[in-house]
Amino acid sequence: MGTFGKGLQLHSHVKGSGELELSLVEVDVPEPAGDEVVIRVEASPINPSDLGLLLGPADMSTATASGSSVRPVLTAKVPERFMPAMAARKDMSMPVGNEGAGVVVSAGSEAQGLVGKTVAVLGGAMYAQYRLAKAADCLVLPQGVSPAEGASAFVNPLTALAMVETMRMEGHKALVHTAAASNLGQMLNKICLAEGVELVNIVRKPDQAQILRDIGAKHIVDSSTPDFTAKLLEALVATGATLAFDAIGGGRLASQILTGMEAAANQSGGAYNRYGSSVHKQVYIYGGLDTGPTELYRSFGFAWGLGGFLLTPFLQKVGPERTQQLRQRVADEIKTTFASQYTAEISLAEALQPDIVAAYNKRATGEKYLINPNKGL
Amino acid sequence: MGTFGKGLQLHSHVKGSGELELSLVEVDVPEPAGDEVVIRVEASPINPSDLGLLLGPADMSTATASGSSVRPVLTAKVPERFMPAMAARKDMSMPVGNEGAGVVVSAGSEAQGLVGKTVAVLGGAMYAQYRLAKAADCLVLPQGVSPAEGASAFVNPLTALAMVETMRMEGHKALVHTAAASNLGQMLNKICLAEGVELVNIVRKPDQAQILRDIGAKHIVDSSTPDFTAKLLEALVATGATLAFDAIGGGRLASQILTGMEAAANQSGGAYNRYGSSVHKQVYIYGGLDTGPTELYRSFGFAWGLGGFLLTPFLQKVGPERTQQLRQRVADEIKTTFASQYTAEISLAEALQPDIVAAYNKRATGEKYLINPNKGL
Repeated sequence: MGTFGKGLQLHSHVKGSGELELSLVEVDVPEPAGDEVVIRVEASPINPSDLGLLLGPADMSTATASGSSVRPVLTAKVPERFMPAMAARKDMSMPVGNEGAGVVVSAGSEAQGLVGKTVAVLGGAMYAQYRLAKAADCLVLPQGVSPAEGASAFVNPLTALAMVETMRMEGHKALVHTAAASNLGQMLNKICLAEGVELVNIVRKPDQAQILRDIGAKHIVDSSTPDFTAKLLEALVATGATLAFDAIGGGRLASQILTGMEAAANQSGGAYNRYGSSVHKQVYIYGGLDTGPTELYRSFGFAWGLGGFLLTPFLQKVGPERTQQLRQRVADEIKTTFASQYTAEISLAEALQPDIVAAYNKRATGEKYLINPNKGL
Repeated sequence: MGTFGKGLQLHSHVKGSGELELSLVEVDVPEPAGDEVVIRVEASPINPSDLGLLLGPADMSTATASGSSVRPVLTAKVPERFMPAMAARKDMSMPVGNEGAGVVVSAGSEAQGLVGKTVAVLGGAMYAQYRLAKAADCLVLPQGVSPAEGASAFVNPLTALAMVETMRMEGHKALVHTAAASNLGQMLNKICLAEGVELVNIVRKPDQAQILRDIGAKHIVDSSTPDFTAKLLEALVATGATLAFDAIGGGRLASQILTGMEAAANQSGGAYNRYGSSVHKQVYIYGGLDTGPTELYRSFGFAWGLGGFLLTPFLQKVGPERTQQLRQRVADEIKTTFASQYTAEISLAEALQPDIVAAYNKRATGEKYLINPNKGL
């Protein structure tokens, strides 16, 4: 096997000594095999789902920078109580970056048609100057779509589509979404508006409500206001939503949603039942913006469920044919329904600067960073 | 319609003024129609699932007795914060008692064969001297089974059977049960031993462990011991249990079980996955011995579910034919697999004495009270 060349890759390494080390590692990029391509990665988002692998449970207030300007290193302490959970990745230097987009710069014999095309890929190790990929895993973006526009073509768009699909598969008629002003939340609003699905948007700040109002969202509830419980109930009654997707995870929000759904179900009448209504209420936690404990005040009967939700098992459940349909829809609507906004575009080296890490690690709704590994260091 | 006679019925009444009132109400017992019978109720258990309707959220430290020895009345305050949840039952005097057994003393033309038979019934209003019932709803107990022996022929036995059925239906291979030394827990052990299903029993006290050891339980873990986490993990690894039924509800136990299941799944190997193992872990809460909040420390990946579990929707799901098979099994094994123990047999009037209420409201595992409405007051 020949070598295409060399390139830098961002690595995250939790050491047995209790330290997280982020660094840029020069790796060989192989010559692509017949069904493979080499992508020059130009855009890869830092999603909340990337931060788990990138930063682990390290205490970023202890972060220090070292190394050189072209080979920067960031080090931070991992509190000892989290080290047992790190057993499976300890002392392994791991590449990071779930998804991204770039231009195909080399291709095997069977994939020559992709050379020069802008493609998006899901599958890890995207915080890198070059990425070898199977041609079949490349989502070819339409003419005129830039890598930055196509960088988030998988996680957010497919998760938003998965929410609406899950709603139909599990027999619910409307949705609730939290952290609703996020890029994903905005996509979900556009999908729901297009398909006539009612959506209750829960936000945490007034300016987030405005973002949603501007794109036509109908039901917006701000959990920071004193009348949150009443407004949530109103929206749940109006929509009949009995399924929620929660990006926050910690605290009382999931419990408040289940309680509201139960109250809404009881408002629509029926005899008193000491076990609560028979309407099934479901909340799926798909993120952990609040990593604290989830607190459930079980005043919502027995017909309820709470669970984790991940994209990959969902796609396995619906199968390859449906997955391909969903992927194609994303490509077709990448500049409209599935458009993403970013706070800043940073280089691989900048992604290792403590002040910039602190900024993207805030996990603030509406603040998303994009890494461009070919921006220069 | 003629009248069979009169009989006392225990009623629970939450008044708009914020008071719970328990009393004995004399009601007419109708002459049975063609397909009906009148049962002289001689035994009805006070299950945790009865206490919700019986006592509601009343503060029983405020309980006071009044009335006469033959018409006792118990009154207690309902804290104002719970009154909104009482809207659907407010100012309604409600009969209580999910299940019980007795002797058929009168029957319609089509049910004459039941006269003199000892039968068990599920369906409410069993804390009463007489209960009108459909003949088809009567579970005829085998010759030689007393009403006391047949009093708990539905809730606990069918719930225990439902746990094993659910395990099979949802693709798990072993079970975890909490409050495991309860009557229900003992039944579950006998079923699992008979069917070769591995069961992890979680108890809260050493003497409860002894009860289970005496009936042959293999995996017993005491949550009051300092090595609980390690012992639980050991039992989860040994059994491969990924489904738990939890009677406690509040606190950290469900979270500890999910965490243990995840650790067990990761011990069996596989590559590191930042989202946790792909093994689905499920806890169903079917009771609320601890009515406090459920606290989930979500360190168990994303392949998990927590939900409420009730017998009635389960029976609807499996259908009438399977339900009938399960009922018949209970009748056949009522003196062995499904035998219940009681702390005391009390009268309807005794069930209204504050000191006795305090005793059965402790919800202590292994302490169960039986009401005999025909014991005299």
